[in-house]
Formats: sequence, C-alpha cells, structure tokens
Amino acid sequence: MSASERFLILAEGQLGPHSSKTASACIRYTPERVAAVLDSTKAGRTAQDVLGFGGDIPIVASLQQGLALRPNAILIGIAPAGGKLPTEWRDLLVTSLEKGLDVWSGLHFFIADDPELAAAAERGRSRIFDLRRPPADLDVSTGKTRDIDATVVLTVGTDCNIGKMTAQLQLRDVLKLRGNRVAFAATGQTGILIEGWGISVDAVVADFIGGAAERLTLQAAQDADIVLVEGQGSIIHPSFSGVTVGLIHGTLPHAFVLCAQPSRTKIRNREWVPIPPLDEFVRMHDTIAAPLRPAPTIAVALNTSDLPENEAREAIREAERLTGLPATDPVRYDASPIAEAIEAFHRSRTSLAAAV
Amino acid sequence: MSASERFLILAEGQLGPHSSKTASACIRYTPERVAAVLDSTKAGRTAQDVLGFGGDIPIVASLQQGLALRPNAILIGIAPAGGKLPTEWRDLLVTSLEKGLDVWSGLHFFIADDPELAAAAERGRSRIFDLRRPPADLDVSTGKTRDIDATVVLTVGTDCNIGKMTAQLQLRDVLKLRGNRVAFAATGQTGILIEGWGISVDAVVADFIGGAAERLTLQAAQDADIVLVEGQGSIIHPSFSGVTVGLIHGTLPHAFVLCAQPSRTKIRNREWVPIPPLDEFVRMHDTIAAPLRPAPTIAVALNTSDLPENEAREAIREAERLTGLPATDPVRYDASPIAEAIEAFHRSRTSLAAAV
Repeated sequence: MSASERFLILAEGQLGPHSSKTASACIRYTPERVAAVLDSTKAGRTAQDVLGFGGDIPIVASLQQGLALRPNAILIGIAPAGGKLPTEWRDLLVTSLEKGLDVWSGLHFFIADDPELAAAAERGRSRIFDLRRPPADLDVSTGKTRDIDATVVLTVGTDCNIGKMTAQLQLRDVLKLRGNRVAFAATGQTGILIEGWGISVDAVVADFIGGAAERLTLQAAQDADIVLVEGQGSIIHPSFSGVTVGLIHGTLPHAFVLCAQPSRTKIRNREWVPIPPLDEFVRMHDTIAAPLRPAPTIAVALNTSDLPENEAREAIREAERLTGLPATDPVRYDASPIAEAIEAFHRSRTSLAAAV
Repeated sequence: MSASERFLILAEGQLGPHSSKTASACIRYTPERVAAVLDSTKAGRTAQDVLGFGGDIPIVASLQQGLALRPNAILIGIAPAGGKLPTEWRDLLVTSLEKGLDVWSGLHFFIADDPELAAAAERGRSRIFDLRRPPADLDVSTGKTRDIDATVVLTVGTDCNIGKMTAQLQLRDVLKLRGNRVAFAATGQTGILIEGWGISVDAVVADFIGGAAERLTLQAAQDADIVLVEGQGSIIHPSFSGVTVGLIHGTLPHAFVLCAQPSRTKIRNREWVPIPPLDEFVRMHDTIAAPLRPAPTIAVALNTSDLPENEAREAIREAERLTGLPATDPVRYDASPIAEAIEAFHRSRTSLAAAV
C-alpha cells in the first residue's frame, strides 16, 4: 500500500455520517487521498455538506464524472453486513480495473478471487487490495499478550458502527500530542485502510480470532507504551459478539474504553435487542474479562453526532453519573478527559509494576 | 458421506480417553465403521483396553499392519489445536490416497486444497472429506432462531474437550428412548463425522459464526420438539471463547446444560487460566444470554472418567450442591436426570406458550 492514492470512493445512496463507515473514516482521517465520492443521490454537494467534515471533496453522480477528477484508485466505501459485493457495482469495477485504476475493498467477498474482476485487473495492469484478507499463517492464541509491558486499551461498544475505531484514532492523536509513545492496532478493514497495517479479525477463521488479536497487539506494543486496540461489534450483538469476545480474550487488554451512541436504544438492524444501560455493559465486560485478566472500564466515549448541543452535554453528564467514569464525545469535543484517564491508568499500572 | 466406511484411524501416540477426541468418539458411537487404530505406542492392545470401550477393535503399529485389516478409508483421529497437518503424516496420506483409500479429516488445514494430496487422490481415484470445510454461502445471523417452536438446548463447558458433544449424544439417545422427537445439531468435525451433517462453526469466517449456528439450529428444528446443539469451547477459553459466545448468540438456546470435568482445575494447555466454580459459570452464561434471550442452566453433565467411583459420586453431589441443579455423568451413569430436566423444561415452556 502506498500513500499516493487518489481515491474515487463508491458510496452510492449511502454517504452519511452513520451509514458509510469506510468512506467517512477515509475522508475524516486521510482527506488528501480522496479525489471524489460517488453517490448520485447527493451529487453536486461536498463532503463537508453531507458529513460535516471533508472540506470541498466533491460528490459526483457517475463513474464518468468521477474519472474526470483523475482518481487512480477506487475505494469501496460501504461495509454491508455479510460483506457481499453489491451486484450493481460489478460492471463499474470491471471498467475501472480495465482503465488501470486500482481497487481497494474491505468486503468479505475477495475481489482478487473473482475470475472476471481478476481478469479485468490483468488487462488494465491494475492492482486489487482486499483489506479484509487474513494472513495465511494465523494460528490460535497463546496468551503471550500477558507479557506486554505497554498498557493495552481496547474499545468496546454497545453496538456496531458507533465509534470504537474513531474513538481510538482521536485518542491516538491526543495522546501523541501529550507526549506519549502510542500505537493504534487496526482490527477492521477501515482501520487497516487508514493505518496501513492490521488484521480484519472478523474475516479470519473463527478459531483464530484470538490468535489474530494477539499478533496485532504484540506487534503494536513493540514501540509503544500505550497500545490502543480497535474494538469490534458488541458483547450483545447477536451476529458479531463472537468476534467481540474473541478479540477481548486474544488482546487481554489492561483496560476498556466503553463506546456508545446515546440516541441508539436498540441494536441497529436487530431491533429485537434493546441496548442495556452503560453500567450494565461495564458489569458484562468485567464478567467476561475477569477469569482471564481483570480489566476495568476506565472511561466512556460517546458518539453524539446526531444530537443537538444541549442533549449531547446532558448525555455526557448522564454517562458519567451512571458509570462514575470520565465521559466525553472525543470527536465533537476535546478527547482529553479520556486521554487523561488512560494516562493515569498507565501511570498507576507501571508504578505498581515497578514496586513489585 | 456413506455409512460403509471401514476406517483406519490415525491417532499416533495419542489414543486415549482424553487426548484423541475424534478417534474416541468415532469408536464410541460408530464402532462398526472402524477397522483399526494406528498408534504404535499402544500397538497390540484393543480399543477396549485403552479407552474402556470399542471392544476388540485392534490397535496397530504401522500403515502396513493397518492395511492388512482392509480399511477403505483413513480417518485423522486427532484434533491438534490450530488444526495443522502433522508433517509426519503427509507421506502416509499420500500413500493411502494413491492406494484408493478415502481420507476423512477434521483439520483446519483442508486436505483437498493441498496440491500434493489432491494429486494423490486423483491418481488413486480416492475421495477426500474435509469435515471442517464450511458451506460457501454462509452469511451473518438474522435472529430467526427466536421463532423456533422446538426447545433448543445448548451445552456449554468449563473448557474444551470435556464432553459437550458426548453429553448431547448420550442425551439424544436417552430422550429418544423416552419417546421424544429429538435432533442433534453438530457444530464440530467429530459431531459431523458421527451425525453425517453439520457445520464446524470454528472453521467459518468469524463474522459468520452466528449465521452458521442459526442455520444448523433451524435445520435441526424442522422435525424435532427438542434440539440438542453441540457446544464448543468455553466462555473463559482464551483462544476459543469467541466461537463459544458466537454460538450462544447465533443459536439463542432456551436453556443450557453445563459440562465440566471435576478433575480439571485449569484450562488445558492454558494453565494460567484457573477454572472458576460451576456456579460462577451459571452466572456468566446468564449474563451473556440475558440481553438477547434469557436462558437458564438446567442441569450439569460431569465427565468423571478419570475419577474413582467414590470421588465421581462426590463430585456429582458437590455439583448439585453448588448449582442447585440435577447433575450426573451421562456416560458413566444413567443420563436420565438431565433428560428429565430437559423434558420438564420443555413441558413448562410449551404449556406457557399455549397459555399465552
């Protein structure tokens, strides 16, 4: 992967702060890599108009319009559950690959394994990056993360797609600014796209979730005092809790940061699952971590992007009241309260270790 | 898969009641399919001598000796963590395939995808059955198992390889004898080998654990009033808890049967994880199930095969005292106490449903 991509991001019908995770994150964290976004339902507007960030990155209505802006790669910017390739995009990808544009994808469906698409890439001498493809040599976890000196912090959440990755990226930036040696371990396709390395733990053979988490955590800890591991799913998500718990037990974090979107009261697309209060999540994560390595929840990161100012402030106060922990929205407001909680935890951990 | 196999089971150095799960289960439940077992360290003895069951199935020292007993298939009878092919077996498999013997394997490593082994099968016109290969069309779970009328019972355990499958197979037989319409849903390679269908949920893409569990449960429920789903791993197993929890939330069982081996105080091969008391497991499974669908633990199945009679009886009494639930060893003793608990639970569930 190089840093010289100029992406045309596919997000047809879905560009929005809560519906196109990969597109949004790419625009938020690496806007210099984005030439344009394809979403005919919002064409003519800018990323800033639709997302509230991204400046004047244009939104176009068609591949033709997008190509006029001279992208050198296509990024599939949405992450449908199940990770299948939307059939209506096949022709577009074939055309793009034939024209020499690389294709970057975070789907479970591997573009490079599709004969038609692989042949198109061959013809166009273009490259395919399947961000979710796991390393071939994964194995089960061994528990080696217990030996890490760095403080390992994992984000956990009340649902998917509520800011577990974003919280860590914001925290990484703030912790760096404050002088910490900090590393971010990407566990999903979007984090890998932004960070340039990682393993999409939801795409590995189920027995190897823990092994993938362990490998990532060990690698991130090599040059860092604080390791921020990107969380996945939710301990109560009916489809993805296995990945969540496997990631917890493979990572063996020292502490959790709990992520939530206050406006969400039910699991998205699984409305039969009500989301319990935050203090119940603290208890659940305590329960699941304790038999292996106790890990306290030390802060709460809220995603208040869909709330007016007064409700956002009230949600933060309510989260603090309910959990007794520092809380903030690390994107909308200053992430420092959570960063300070992590630093304080790291200090007490290392001074304890030194005293032993 | 046909029922006319005559297996030579590979279990070199490992045949034993606690160390060769696939071999042992195949011998216990389908002895008519077993021609011989290859384990040079126990050659000359019988399965009965080593395992305490299996009658006069011979144990041989070499492939040569095994072939003399006219098997028509090789079964890889051990399940190493990580599921790699022991390198020392490669030549043996090539030779066997070339001689026309089918190969049945439950490894994560797919025999049929290995060029050398596939070529050997081609030459010998033999077949390869990779029991762990997942269906190609899996997807994420949807929650459809909530609509099942049948009572769904999942075994959960304190560790791997302590009898979660065996308990269900014993219960299936007893419940059938007692006149129930009962189905067993196999979730691992050994269960699939015995039952002839199923999905090895630990071998699917991690995001699809729940979807695999859901599909299996729905299929098993088609002609049954009681569905017994084979559990996997343990909620506290550092490497496999993801599969365990994904299976719980994909299956959405109505009730759990908790399986344990009283002599085991630490997770096998992960001695840094002490095994908490049984009542703590009841609480943990309550915690993880409740947000989606509350599922009580209704009985305890102990594996006392390594204990003398008096200690086995005492372990059962202790389990009952600690949990307040009926407990027994469903292999060593009569499985009826657990079967009765399942029947009583099923009756109260269905009469409740009828009253609504």
